[in-house]
Amino acid sequence: MTRPAAEPRSAYQHFQAMPTRWNDNDVYGHVNNSVYYFFFDTIVNCWLIENDILEIGKSETIGLVVETGCNFFAPITYPDVVHGGLRVSKIGSSSVTYEIGLFANDDESCAAKGHFVHVYVDEKTRRPVKLSDEMREKLGHLQ
Amino acid sequence: MTRPAAEPRSAYQHFQAMPTRWNDNDVYGHVNNSVYYFFFDTIVNCWLIENDILEIGKSETIGLVVETGCNFFAPITYPDVVHGGLRVSKIGSSSVTYEIGLFANDDESCAAKGHFVHVYVDEKTRRPVKLSDEMREKLGHLQ
Amino acid sequence: MTRPAAEPRSAYQHFQAMPTRWNDNDVYGHVNNSVYYFFFDTIVNCWLIENDILEIGKSETIGLVVETGCNFFAPITYPDVVHGGLRVSKIGSSSVTYEIGLFANDDESCAAKGHFVHVYVDEKTRRPVKLSDEMREKLGHLQ
Amino acid sequence: MTRPAAEPRSAYQHFQAMPTRWNDNDVYGHVNNSVYYFFFDTIVNCWLIENDILEIGKSETIGLVVETGCNFFAPITYPDVVHGGLRVSKIGSSSVTYEIGLFANDDESCAAKGHFVHVYVDEKTRRPVKLSDEMREKLGHLQ
Repeated sequence: MTRPAAEPRSAYQHFQAMPTRWNDNDVYGHVNNSVYYFFFDTIVNCWLIENDILEIGKSETIGLVVETGCNFFAPITYPDVVHGGLRVSKIGSSSVTYEIGLFANDDESCAAKGHFVHVYVDEKTRRPVKLSDEMREKLGHLQ
Repeated sequence: MTRPAAEPRSAYQHFQAMPTRWNDNDVYGHVNNSVYYFFFDTIVNCWLIENDILEIGKSETIGLVVETGCNFFAPITYPDVVHGGLRVSKIGSSSVTYEIGLFANDDESCAAKGHFVHVYVDEKTRRPVKLSDEMREKLGHLQ
Repeated sequence: MTRPAAEPRSAYQHFQAMPTRWNDNDVYGHVNNSVYYFFFDTIVNCWLIENDILEIGKSETIGLVVETGCNFFAPITYPDVVHGGLRVSKIGSSSVTYEIGLFANDDESCAAKGHFVHVYVDEKTRRPVKLSDEMREKLGHLQ
Repeated sequence: MTRPAAEPRSAYQHFQAMPTRWNDNDVYGHVNNSVYYFFFDTIVNCWLIENDILEIGKSETIGLVVETGCNFFAPITYPDVVHGGLRVSKIGSSSVTYEIGLFANDDESCAAKGHFVHVYVDEKTRRPVKLSDEMREKLGHLQ
Protein backbone atom coordinates (compact mmCIF):
# COMPACT_ATOMS: atom_id res chain seq x y z
CA MET A 1 0.00 0.00 0.00
CA THR A 2 1.39 3.36 -1.02
CA ARG A 3 0.50 6.08 1.41
CA PRO A 4 -1.13 9.15 -0.20
CA ALA A 5 0.92 12.33 -0.11
CA ALA A 6 -0.04 15.73 1.22
CA GLU A 7 -1.25 18.15 -1.45
CA PRO A 8 -0.93 21.91 -2.00
CA ARG A 9 -3.83 24.37 -1.94
CA SER A 10 -3.73 24.56 -5.72
CA ALA A 11 -5.14 21.02 -5.87
CA TYR A 12 -8.52 22.28 -4.63
CA GLN A 13 -11.21 24.40 -6.28
CA HIS A 14 -13.23 25.85 -3.40
CA PHE A 15 -12.25 26.88 0.12
CA GLN A 16 -14.01 27.43 3.42
CA ALA A 17 -12.53 28.64 6.71
CA MET A 18 -13.52 26.63 9.80
CA PRO A 19 -11.96 27.63 13.14
CA THR A 20 -11.24 24.86 15.59
CA ARG A 21 -12.97 24.68 18.99
CA TRP A 22 -11.52 24.05 22.43
CA ASN A 23 -12.99 20.57 22.73
CA ASP A 24 -11.75 19.50 19.29
CA ASN A 25 -8.43 18.88 21.01
CA ASP A 26 -8.15 15.54 22.73
CA VAL A 27 -5.81 14.58 25.57
CA TYR A 28 -2.84 14.52 23.19
CA GLY A 29 -3.29 18.25 22.55
CA HIS A 30 -4.35 17.99 18.91
CA VAL A 31 -7.64 18.01 17.08
CA ASN A 32 -9.06 14.50 17.35
CA ASN A 33 -9.19 12.51 14.12
CA SER A 34 -13.00 12.17 14.25
CA VAL A 35 -13.41 15.94 14.19
CA TYR A 36 -11.87 16.07 10.70
CA TYR A 37 -15.01 14.37 9.44
CA PHE A 38 -17.13 17.15 10.97
CA PHE A 39 -15.13 19.51 8.75
CA PHE A 40 -15.80 17.32 5.70
CA ASP A 41 -19.55 17.30 6.40
CA THR A 42 -19.54 21.02 6.98
CA ILE A 43 -17.73 22.05 3.81
CA VAL A 44 -19.63 19.67 1.51
CA ASN A 45 -23.05 20.63 2.85
CA CYS A 46 -22.22 24.36 2.91
CA TRP A 47 -21.28 24.14 -0.77
CA LEU A 48 -24.56 22.32 -1.54
CA ILE A 49 -26.54 24.97 0.32
CA GLU A 50 -24.73 27.92 -1.24
CA ASN A 51 -25.32 26.42 -4.66
CA ASP A 52 -29.06 25.94 -4.07
CA ILE A 53 -28.80 22.17 -4.25
CA LEU A 54 -29.70 21.55 -0.61
CA GLU A 55 -32.19 23.36 1.59
CA ILE A 56 -32.24 21.66 4.99
CA GLY A 57 -35.70 20.41 5.91
CA LYS A 58 -37.14 21.23 2.47
CA SER A 59 -35.14 19.47 -0.24
CA GLU A 60 -36.76 16.38 -1.75
CA THR A 61 -33.30 14.99 -2.46
CA ILE A 62 -30.68 14.61 0.28
CA GLY A 63 -27.17 13.21 0.36
CA LEU A 64 -26.44 10.19 2.55
CA VAL A 65 -22.85 9.27 3.31
CA VAL A 66 -21.85 5.76 2.22
CA GLU A 67 -18.08 5.96 2.53
CA THR A 68 -15.50 8.26 4.06
CA GLY A 69 -11.78 8.08 4.69
CA CYS A 70 -8.89 10.26 5.73
CA ASN A 71 -5.10 10.30 5.77
CA PHE A 72 -3.47 12.42 8.46
CA PHE A 73 -0.14 14.08 7.67
CA ALA A 74 0.36 16.70 10.36
CA PRO A 75 -1.47 17.77 13.52
CA ILE A 76 -4.05 20.53 13.66
CA THR A 77 -4.74 22.13 17.01
CA TYR A 78 -7.00 24.59 18.80
CA PRO A 79 -6.86 27.55 18.24
CA ASP A 80 -6.06 27.07 14.54
CA VAL A 81 -8.21 28.10 11.63
CA VAL A 82 -8.73 25.17 9.27
CA HIS A 83 -9.11 26.03 5.60
CA GLY A 84 -10.95 23.22 3.88
CA GLY A 85 -10.34 22.74 0.18
CA LEU A 86 -13.00 20.91 -1.83
CA ARG A 87 -12.99 19.17 -5.20
CA VAL A 88 -15.07 16.50 -6.89
CA SER A 89 -13.22 13.41 -8.11
CA LYS A 90 -16.08 11.30 -9.43
CA ILE A 91 -19.67 11.92 -10.48
CA GLY A 92 -21.73 8.74 -10.72
CA SER A 93 -25.34 8.18 -11.62
CA SER A 94 -26.61 9.05 -8.15
CA SER A 95 -23.38 9.38 -6.19
CA VAL A 96 -20.62 11.95 -5.90
CA THR A 97 -17.12 11.47 -4.51
CA TYR A 98 -15.77 14.62 -2.91
CA GLU A 99 -12.15 15.05 -1.89
CA ILE A 100 -11.19 17.45 0.86
CA GLY A 101 -7.84 18.84 1.95
CA LEU A 102 -7.58 20.48 5.36
CA PHE A 103 -4.96 23.24 5.68
CA ALA A 104 -4.00 24.73 9.05
CA ASN A 105 -3.77 28.52 9.10
CA ASP A 106 -1.40 29.65 6.31
CA ASP A 107 0.08 26.23 5.56
CA GLU A 108 0.59 25.49 1.89
CA SER A 109 0.57 21.73 2.39
CA CYS A 110 -2.53 19.98 3.72
CA ALA A 111 -2.54 18.49 7.22
CA ALA A 112 -5.03 15.86 6.13
CA LYS A 113 -6.70 14.63 2.96
CA GLY A 114 -10.01 12.85 2.90
CA HIS A 115 -12.74 11.57 0.67
CA PHE A 116 -16.46 11.59 1.24
CA VAL A 117 -18.99 9.71 -0.90
CA HIS A 118 -22.59 10.93 -0.98
CA VAL A 119 -25.41 8.95 -2.51
CA TYR A 120 -28.32 11.23 -3.29
CA VAL A 121 -31.65 9.79 -2.24
CA ASP A 122 -35.30 10.73 -2.06
CA GLU A 123 -35.82 12.34 1.33
CA LYS A 124 -38.92 10.24 2.07
CA THR A 125 -38.16 6.82 0.58
CA ARG A 126 -34.37 7.09 1.05
CA ARG A 127 -33.97 5.39 -2.36
CA PRO A 128 -31.23 6.64 -4.73
CA VAL A 129 -32.24 9.21 -7.34
CA LYS A 130 -30.39 10.29 -10.48
CA LEU A 131 -28.43 13.50 -10.23
CA SER A 132 -30.13 16.31 -12.13
CA ASP A 133 -28.38 17.92 -15.09
CA GLU A 134 -28.31 21.18 -13.14
CA MET A 135 -26.52 19.52 -10.23
CA ARG A 136 -24.05 17.82 -12.59
CA GLU A 137 -23.27 21.15 -14.16
CA LYS A 138 -22.60 22.75 -10.76
CA LEU A 139 -20.50 19.81 -9.58
CA GLY A 140 -18.47 20.11 -12.75
CA HIS A 141 -17.05 23.38 -11.43
CA LEU A 142 -15.43 21.46 -8.58
CA GLN A 143 -13.66 18.98 -10.86
CA MET B 1 -38.15 33.15 38.88
CA THR B 2 -37.70 35.98 36.43
CA ARG B 3 -36.36 34.80 33.13
CA PRO B 4 -33.29 36.72 31.91
CA ALA B 5 -33.81 38.84 28.82
CA ALA B 6 -31.87 38.81 25.55
CA GLU B 7 -29.18 41.47 25.34
CA PRO B 8 -27.79 43.62 22.53
CA ARG B 9 -24.24 43.43 21.19
CA SER B 10 -23.37 46.61 23.06
CA ALA B 11 -23.54 44.64 26.33
CA TYR B 12 -20.34 42.78 25.44
CA GLN B 13 -16.69 43.87 25.25
CA HIS B 14 -15.00 41.34 23.00
CA PHE B 15 -16.27 39.34 20.01
CA GLN B 16 -15.28 36.18 18.19
CA ALA B 17 -16.84 34.64 15.08
CA MET B 18 -17.53 30.90 15.27
CA PRO B 19 -19.27 29.28 12.29
CA THR B 20 -21.63 26.41 13.02
CA ARG B 21 -20.98 22.90 11.73
CA TRP B 22 -23.31 20.45 10.03
CA ASN B 23 -23.53 18.13 13.01
CA ASP B 24 -24.26 20.97 15.45
CA ASN B 25 -27.86 20.68 14.25
CA ASP B 26 -29.86 17.99 15.96
CA VAL B 27 -32.99 16.28 14.65
CA TYR B 28 -35.07 19.39 15.30
CA GLY B 29 -32.99 21.29 12.73
CA HIS B 30 -31.31 23.68 15.16
CA VAL B 31 -27.98 23.82 16.90
CA ASN B 32 -28.23 21.53 19.91
CA ASN B 33 -28.18 23.24 23.31
CA SER B 34 -25.00 21.43 24.40
CA VAL B 35 -23.07 22.89 21.49
CA TYR B 36 -23.55 26.40 22.91
CA TYR B 37 -21.19 25.39 25.70
CA PHE B 38 -18.54 24.46 23.12
CA PHE B 39 -18.80 28.07 21.95
CA PHE B 40 -18.41 29.32 25.54
CA ASP B 41 -15.28 27.21 26.05
CA THR B 42 -13.88 28.31 22.73
CA ILE B 43 -14.31 32.05 23.19
CA VAL B 44 -13.08 32.12 26.80
CA ASN B 45 -9.98 30.03 26.11
CA CYS B 46 -9.19 31.89 22.87
CA TRP B 47 -9.25 35.14 24.82
CA LEU B 48 -6.94 33.65 27.48
CA ILE B 49 -4.53 32.44 24.80
CA GLU B 50 -4.54 35.70 22.83
CA ASN B 51 -3.84 37.59 26.05
CA ASP B 52 -0.89 35.36 26.97
CA ILE B 53 -2.62 34.01 30.07
CA LEU B 54 -2.95 30.44 28.80
CA GLU B 55 -0.53 28.40 26.74
CA ILE B 56 -1.98 24.93 26.28
CA GLY B 57 0.34 22.24 27.61
CA LYS B 58 2.73 24.76 29.13
CA SER B 59 0.89 27.04 31.56
CA GLU B 60 1.38 26.27 35.24
CA THR B 61 -2.06 27.68 35.95
CA ILE B 62 -5.15 26.39 34.15
CA GLY B 63 -8.85 27.20 34.41
CA LEU B 64 -11.24 24.46 35.51
CA VAL B 65 -14.95 24.93 34.99
CA VAL B 66 -17.04 24.74 38.19
CA GLU B 67 -20.34 26.14 36.97
CA THR B 68 -22.02 26.93 33.67
CA GLY B 69 -25.51 27.91 32.60
CA CYS B 70 -27.40 29.19 29.60
CA ASN B 71 -30.73 30.75 28.65
CA PHE B 72 -31.91 30.14 25.11
CA PHE B 73 -33.99 32.86 23.42
CA ALA B 74 -33.97 32.00 19.73
CA PRO B 75 -32.66 29.15 17.58
CA ILE B 76 -29.29 29.12 15.86
CA THR B 77 -28.81 26.81 12.92
CA TYR B 78 -26.23 25.48 10.49
CA PRO B 79 -24.98 27.22 8.39
CA ASP B 80 -25.03 30.34 10.59
CA VAL B 81 -22.03 32.23 11.85
CA VAL B 82 -22.22 32.69 15.61
CA HIS B 83 -20.67 35.85 16.99
CA GLY B 84 -19.80 35.29 20.62
CA GLY B 85 -19.69 38.33 22.88
CA LEU B 86 -17.63 38.08 26.07
CA ARG B 87 -17.55 40.06 29.29
CA VAL B 88 -16.43 39.46 32.87
CA SER B 89 -19.05 39.89 35.58
CA LYS B 90 -17.09 38.87 38.67
CA ILE B 91 -13.44 38.49 39.59
CA GLY B 92 -12.87 36.51 42.78
CA SER B 93 -9.72 35.49 44.57
CA SER B 94 -9.05 32.53 42.27
CA SER B 95 -12.22 32.44 40.18
CA VAL B 96 -13.66 34.42 37.30
CA THR B 97 -17.25 34.55 36.10
CA TYR B 98 -17.52 35.14 32.38
CA GLU B 99 -20.77 36.01 30.62
CA ILE B 100 -21.27 35.20 26.98
CA GLY B 101 -23.90 36.30 24.48
CA LEU B 102 -24.26 34.35 21.24
CA PHE B 103 -25.49 36.33 18.24
CA ALA B 104 -26.51 34.64 14.99
CA ASN B 105 -25.17 36.30 11.84
CA ASP B 106 -26.13 40.01 11.89
CA ASP B 107 -28.67 39.79 14.70
CA GLU B 108 -28.58 42.65 17.17
CA SER B 109 -30.22 40.63 19.95
CA CYS B 110 -28.52 37.55 21.36
CA ALA B 111 -29.94 34.09 20.65
CA ALA B 112 -28.58 32.82 23.96
CA LYS B 113 -26.87 34.16 27.06
CA GLY B 114 -24.68 32.09 29.30
CA HIS B 115 -22.30 32.22 32.18
CA PHE B 116 -19.14 30.24 32.74
CA VAL B 117 -17.18 30.12 36.02
CA HIS B 118 -13.51 29.22 35.92
CA VAL B 119 -11.48 28.44 39.00
CA TYR B 120 -7.79 28.84 38.25
CA VAL B 121 -5.69 26.00 39.63
CA ASP B 122 -2.15 24.75 39.64
CA GLU B 123 -1.82 22.46 36.62
CA LYS B 124 -0.14 19.71 38.65
CA THR B 125 -1.88 19.79 42.03
CA ARG B 126 -5.21 21.07 40.68
CA ARG B 127 -5.47 23.27 43.79
CA PRO B 128 -6.80 26.86 43.43
CA VAL B 129 -4.23 29.62 43.01
CA LYS B 130 -4.67 33.36 43.43
CA LEU B 131 -5.13 35.35 40.23
CA SER B 132 -2.02 37.35 39.38
CA ASP B 133 -2.19 41.14 39.27
CA GLU B 134 -1.38 40.96 35.60
CA MET B 135 -4.32 38.65 34.93
CA ARG B 136 -6.64 40.85 37.00
CA GLU B 137 -5.58 43.85 34.98
CA LYS B 138 -6.30 42.08 31.70
CA LEU B 139 -9.64 40.73 32.93
CA GLY B 140 -10.56 44.27 33.92
CA HIS B 141 -10.77 45.17 30.25
CA LEU B 142 -13.65 42.74 29.86
CA GLN B 143 -15.70 44.25 32.68
CA MET C 1 -24.16 32.99 46.35
CA THR C 2 -24.26 29.60 48.04
CA ARG C 3 -22.79 26.89 45.91
CA PRO C 4 -25.03 23.82 45.53
CA ALA C 5 -23.78 20.65 47.17
CA ALA C 6 -23.21 17.24 45.62
CA GLU C 7 -26.07 14.80 46.18
CA PRO C 8 -26.31 11.05 46.77
CA ARG C 9 -27.89 8.56 44.38
CA SER C 10 -30.93 8.36 46.64
CA ALA C 11 -31.89 11.88 45.54
CA TYR C 12 -32.81 10.60 42.07
CA GLN C 13 -35.68 8.45 40.79
CA HIS C 14 -34.47 7.01 37.51
CA PHE C 15 -31.01 5.99 36.30
CA GLN C 16 -29.30 5.44 32.97
CA ALA C 17 -25.75 4.26 32.30
CA MET C 18 -23.79 6.27 29.71
CA PRO C 19 -20.16 5.29 29.10
CA THR C 20 -17.75 8.08 28.26
CA ARG C 21 -15.95 8.26 24.91
CA TRP C 22 -12.31 8.91 24.11
CA ASN C 23 -12.93 12.38 22.72
CA ASP C 24 -15.06 13.45 25.70
CA ASN C 25 -11.74 14.12 27.45
CA ASP C 26 -10.21 17.47 26.66
CA VAL C 27 -6.54 18.46 26.96
CA TYR C 28 -6.80 18.53 30.74
CA GLY C 29 -7.55 14.79 30.76
CA HIS C 30 -11.14 15.03 31.97
CA VAL C 31 -14.53 14.97 30.33
CA ASN C 32 -15.15 18.47 28.99
CA ASN C 33 -17.89 20.45 30.72
CA SER C 34 -19.97 20.74 27.53
CA VAL C 35 -20.23 16.98 27.25
CA TYR C 36 -22.20 16.84 30.51
CA TYR C 37 -25.04 18.51 28.63
CA PHE C 38 -24.98 15.71 26.05
CA PHE C 39 -25.64 13.37 28.97
CA PHE C 40 -28.54 15.55 30.15
CA ASP C 41 -30.12 15.53 26.67
CA THR C 42 -29.60 11.81 26.37
CA ILE C 43 -31.15 10.78 29.67
CA VAL C 44 -34.15 13.14 29.41
CA ASN C 45 -35.01 12.15 25.85
CA CYS C 46 -34.45 8.43 26.51
CA TRP C 47 -36.92 8.67 29.38
CA LEU C 48 -39.44 10.45 27.14
CA ILE C 49 -39.02 7.79 24.43
CA GLU C 50 -39.25 4.84 26.84
CA ASN C 51 -42.41 6.33 28.32
CA ASP C 52 -44.06 6.77 24.91
CA ILE C 53 -44.09 10.54 25.19
CA LEU C 54 -41.62 11.18 22.38
CA GLU C 55 -41.24 9.35 19.08
CA ILE C 56 -38.49 11.08 17.09
CA GLY C 57 -39.73 12.30 13.72
CA LYS C 58 -43.35 11.44 14.53
CA SER C 59 -44.46 13.21 17.70
CA GLU C 60 -46.65 16.28 17.23
CA THR C 61 -45.26 17.70 20.47
CA ILE C 62 -41.53 18.10 21.03
CA GLY C 63 -39.46 19.52 23.87
CA LEU C 64 -37.27 22.56 23.19
CA VAL C 65 -34.61 23.53 25.69
CA VAL C 66 -34.96 27.05 27.12
CA GLU C 67 -32.54 26.88 30.04
CA THR C 68 -29.78 24.60 31.28
CA GLY C 69 -27.15 24.81 33.98
CA CYS C 70 -24.62 22.65 35.77
CA ASN C 71 -22.42 22.64 38.85
CA PHE C 72 -19.26 20.56 38.66
CA PHE C 73 -17.99 18.93 41.85
CA ALA C 74 -15.46 16.32 40.73
CA PRO C 75 -13.93 15.24 37.43
CA ILE C 76 -15.25 12.45 35.24
CA THR C 77 -12.88 10.87 32.78
CA TYR C 78 -12.69 8.40 29.91
CA PRO C 79 -13.06 5.44 30.34
CA ASP C 80 -15.62 5.90 33.12
CA VAL C 81 -19.24 4.85 33.04
CA VAL C 82 -21.50 7.76 33.94
CA HIS C 83 -24.72 6.88 35.73
CA GLY C 84 -27.21 9.66 35.18
CA GLY C 85 -29.90 10.15 37.83
CA LEU C 86 -33.08 11.94 36.78
CA ARG C 87 -35.84 13.67 38.70
CA VAL C 88 -38.46 16.32 37.97
CA SER C 89 -38.42 19.41 40.15
CA LYS C 90 -41.16 21.51 38.56
CA ILE C 91 -44.05 20.85 36.21
CA GLY C 92 -45.48 24.01 34.64
CA SER C 93 -48.28 24.55 32.18
CA SER C 94 -46.16 23.68 29.17
CA SER C 95 -42.69 23.38 30.70
CA VAL C 96 -40.85 20.83 32.81
CA THR C 97 -37.71 21.33 34.89
CA TYR C 98 -35.60 18.21 35.09
CA GLU C 99 -32.69 17.80 37.48
CA ILE C 100 -29.87 15.43 36.71
CA GLY C 101 -27.05 14.07 38.83
CA LEU C 102 -24.09 12.43 37.11
CA PHE C 103 -22.30 9.72 39.08
CA ALA C 104 -18.99 8.25 37.95
CA ASN C 105 -18.77 4.45 38.12
CA ASP C 106 -19.70 3.33 41.66
CA ASP C 107 -19.50 6.75 43.31
CA GLU C 108 -22.21 7.49 45.84
CA SER C 109 -21.85 11.26 45.49
CA CYS C 110 -22.55 12.99 42.18
CA ALA C 111 -19.69 14.48 40.16
CA ALA C 112 -22.04 17.09 38.73
CA LYS C 113 -25.59 18.28 39.16
CA GLY C 114 -27.56 20.04 36.47
CA HIS C 115 -30.95 21.31 35.51
CA PHE C 116 -32.62 21.25 32.14
CA VAL C 117 -35.84 23.10 31.28
CA HIS C 118 -37.95 21.85 28.38
CA VAL C 119 -40.84 23.80 26.93
CA TYR C 120 -43.12 21.47 25.00
CA VAL C 121 -44.18 22.90 21.66
CA ASP C 122 -46.12 21.94 18.58
CA GLU C 123 -43.62 20.34 16.21
CA LYS C 124 -44.81 22.41 13.25
CA THR C 125 -45.61 25.83 14.70
CA ARG C 126 -43.05 25.60 17.54
CA ARG C 127 -45.65 27.29 19.81
CA PRO C 128 -46.01 26.05 23.42
CA VAL C 129 -48.70 23.46 24.09
CA LYS C 130 -50.22 22.38 27.42
CA LEU C 131 -48.86 19.20 28.91
CA SER C 132 -51.38 16.37 28.59
CA ASP C 133 -52.79 14.75 31.74
CA GLU C 134 -51.11 11.52 30.69
CA MET C 135 -47.73 13.20 30.48
CA ARG C 136 -48.26 14.90 33.85
CA GLU C 137 -49.06 11.57 35.40
CA LYS C 138 -45.88 10.00 34.01
CA LEU C 139 -43.73 12.95 35.03
CA GLY C 140 -45.17 12.65 38.53
CA HIS C 141 -43.25 9.41 38.95
CA LEU C 142 -40.00 11.36 38.64
CA GLN C 143 -40.88 13.83 41.40
CA MET D 1 -14.05 -0.23 -7.14
CA THR D 2 -15.75 -3.08 -5.35
CA ARG D 3 -17.69 -1.96 -2.35
CA PRO D 4 -16.92 -3.86 0.87
CA ALA D 5 -19.71 -6.00 2.23
CA ALA D 6 -21.26 -5.98 5.69
CA GLU D 7 -19.87 -8.63 8.03
CA PRO D 8 -21.36 -10.78 10.80
CA ARG D 9 -20.44 -10.56 14.48
CA SER D 10 -18.37 -13.72 14.14
CA ALA D 11 -15.81 -11.74 12.12
CA TYR D 12 -14.74 -9.85 15.25
CA GLN D 13 -12.80 -10.92 18.35
CA HIS D 14 -13.69 -8.39 21.02
CA PHE D 15 -16.88 -6.42 21.68
CA GLN D 16 -17.83 -3.26 23.52
CA ALA D 17 -21.29 -1.74 24.00
CA MET D 18 -21.57 1.99 23.32
CA PRO D 19 -25.02 3.58 23.60
CA THR D 20 -25.79 6.43 21.21
CA ARG D 21 -26.51 9.96 22.47
CA TRP D 22 -29.26 12.38 21.52
CA ASN D 23 -26.96 14.71 19.63
CA ASP D 24 -25.34 11.87 17.65
CA ASN D 25 -28.39 12.12 15.39
CA ASP D 26 -28.17 14.81 12.75
CA VAL D 27 -31.07 16.49 10.92
CA TYR D 28 -31.70 13.35 8.86
CA GLY D 29 -32.58 11.45 12.05
CA HIS D 30 -29.60 9.10 12.05
CA VAL D 31 -26.26 9.00 13.79
CA ASN D 32 -23.95 11.30 11.83
CA ASN D 33 -21.13 9.60 9.94
CA SER D 34 -18.43 11.44 11.91
CA VAL D 35 -19.70 9.98 15.16
CA TYR D 36 -18.78 6.48 13.97
CA TYR D 37 -15.15 7.52 14.31
CA PHE D 38 -15.75 8.46 17.95
CA PHE D 39 -16.83 4.85 18.42
CA PHE D 40 -13.65 3.60 16.71
CA ASP D 41 -11.46 5.75 18.97
CA THR D 42 -13.38 4.63 22.02
CA ILE D 43 -13.21 0.90 21.42
CA VAL D 44 -9.54 0.86 20.37
CA ASN D 45 -8.36 2.97 23.29
CA CYS D 46 -10.54 1.10 25.81
CA TRP D 47 -8.95 -2.14 24.66
CA LEU D 48 -5.46 -0.61 25.02
CA ILE D 49 -6.30 0.61 28.53
CA GLU D 50 -7.89 -2.66 29.66
CA ASN D 51 -4.84 -4.54 28.40
CA ASP D 52 -2.41 -2.29 30.28
CA ILE D 53 -0.87 -0.93 27.09
CA LEU D 54 -2.13 2.63 27.53
CA GLU D 55 -2.44 4.68 30.69
CA ILE D 56 -3.69 8.15 29.74
CA GLY D 57 -1.30 10.87 30.87
CA LYS D 58 1.34 8.36 31.99
CA SER D 59 2.30 6.08 29.09
CA GLU D 60 5.60 6.88 27.39
CA THR D 61 4.22 5.43 24.16
CA ILE D 62 0.97 6.69 22.65
CA GLY D 63 -0.92 5.84 19.46
CA LEU D 64 -1.43 8.56 16.87
CA VAL D 65 -3.97 8.06 14.12
CA VAL D 66 -2.55 8.25 10.58
CA GLU D 67 -5.42 6.83 8.57
CA THR D 68 -9.08 5.99 9.08
CA GLY D 69 -11.94 4.99 6.84
CA CYS D 70 -15.48 3.67 7.01
CA ASN D 71 -18.14 2.10 4.81
CA PHE D 72 -21.73 2.67 5.88
CA PHE D 73 -24.28 -0.06 5.17
CA ALA D 74 -27.32 0.78 7.28
CA PRO D 75 -28.35 3.63 9.57
CA ILE D 76 -27.82 3.68 13.33
CA THR D 77 -29.98 5.98 15.40
CA TYR D 78 -30.50 7.33 18.89
CA PRO D 79 -31.50 5.58 21.13
CA ASP D 80 -29.70 2.48 19.84
CA VAL D 81 -26.93 0.61 21.58
CA VAL D 82 -23.95 0.17 19.27
CA HIS D 83 -21.90 -2.99 19.77
CA GLY D 84 -18.44 -2.40 18.41
CA GLY D 85 -16.49 -5.43 17.23
CA LEU D 86 -12.70 -5.15 17.10
CA ARG D 87 -10.00 -7.11 15.32
CA VAL D 88 -6.44 -6.47 14.19
CA SER D 89 -5.69 -6.92 10.49
CA LYS D 90 -2.05 -5.86 10.33
CA ILE D 91 0.79 -5.46 12.80
CA GLY D 92 3.70 -3.45 11.44
CA SER D 93 6.97 -2.39 13.00
CA SER D 94 5.44 0.55 14.84
CA SER D 95 1.90 0.62 13.43
CA VAL D 96 -1.26 -1.40 13.91
CA THR D 97 -4.29 -1.57 11.64
CA TYR D 98 -7.49 -2.18 13.56
CA GLU D 99 -10.79 -3.07 11.89
CA ILE D 100 -14.06 -2.29 13.57
CA GLY D 101 -17.60 -3.41 12.85
CA LEU D 102 -20.49 -1.48 14.40
CA PHE D 103 -23.64 -3.49 15.11
CA ALA D 104 -26.91 -1.82 16.13
CA ASN D 105 -28.71 -3.47 19.04
CA ASP D 106 -29.18 -7.19 18.24
CA ASP D 107 -28.33 -6.98 14.55
CA GLU D 108 -26.22 -9.83 13.22
CA SER D 109 -24.90 -7.82 10.28
CA CYS D 110 -22.80 -4.70 10.85
CA ALA D 111 -24.22 -1.28 10.06
CA ALA D 112 -20.73 0.02 9.28
CA LYS D 113 -17.21 -1.29 8.92
CA GLY D 114 -14.14 0.81 9.42
CA HIS D 115 -10.41 0.70 9.73
CA PHE D 116 -8.17 2.71 12.00
CA VAL D 117 -4.37 2.86 11.73
CA HIS D 118 -2.35 3.79 14.79
CA VAL D 119 1.34 4.61 14.69
CA TYR D 120 2.84 4.23 18.13
CA VAL D 121 5.14 7.10 19.06
CA ASP D 122 7.17 8.39 21.96
CA GLU D 123 4.85 10.65 23.95
CA LYS D 124 7.45 13.42 24.15
CA THR D 125 9.23 13.36 20.80
CA ARG D 126 6.22 12.03 18.85
CA ARG D 127 8.67 9.85 16.87
CA PRO D 128 7.63 6.25 16.00
CA VAL D 129 8.78 3.50 18.36
CA LYS D 130 8.90 -0.24 17.79
CA LEU D 131 6.03 -2.23 19.23
CA SER D 132 7.13 -4.22 22.26
CA ASP D 133 6.96 -8.00 22.21
CA GLU D 134 4.40 -7.84 25.00
CA MET D 135 2.17 -5.57 22.95
CA ARG D 136 2.55 -7.78 19.88
CA GLU D 137 1.53 -10.78 21.90
CA LYS D 138 -1.59 -9.03 23.19
CA LEU D 139 -2.50 -7.71 19.75
CA GLY D 140 -2.17 -11.26 18.43
CA HIS D 141 -5.32 -12.15 20.38
CA LEU D 142 -7.29 -9.75 18.21
CA GLN D 143 -6.15 -11.29 14.93
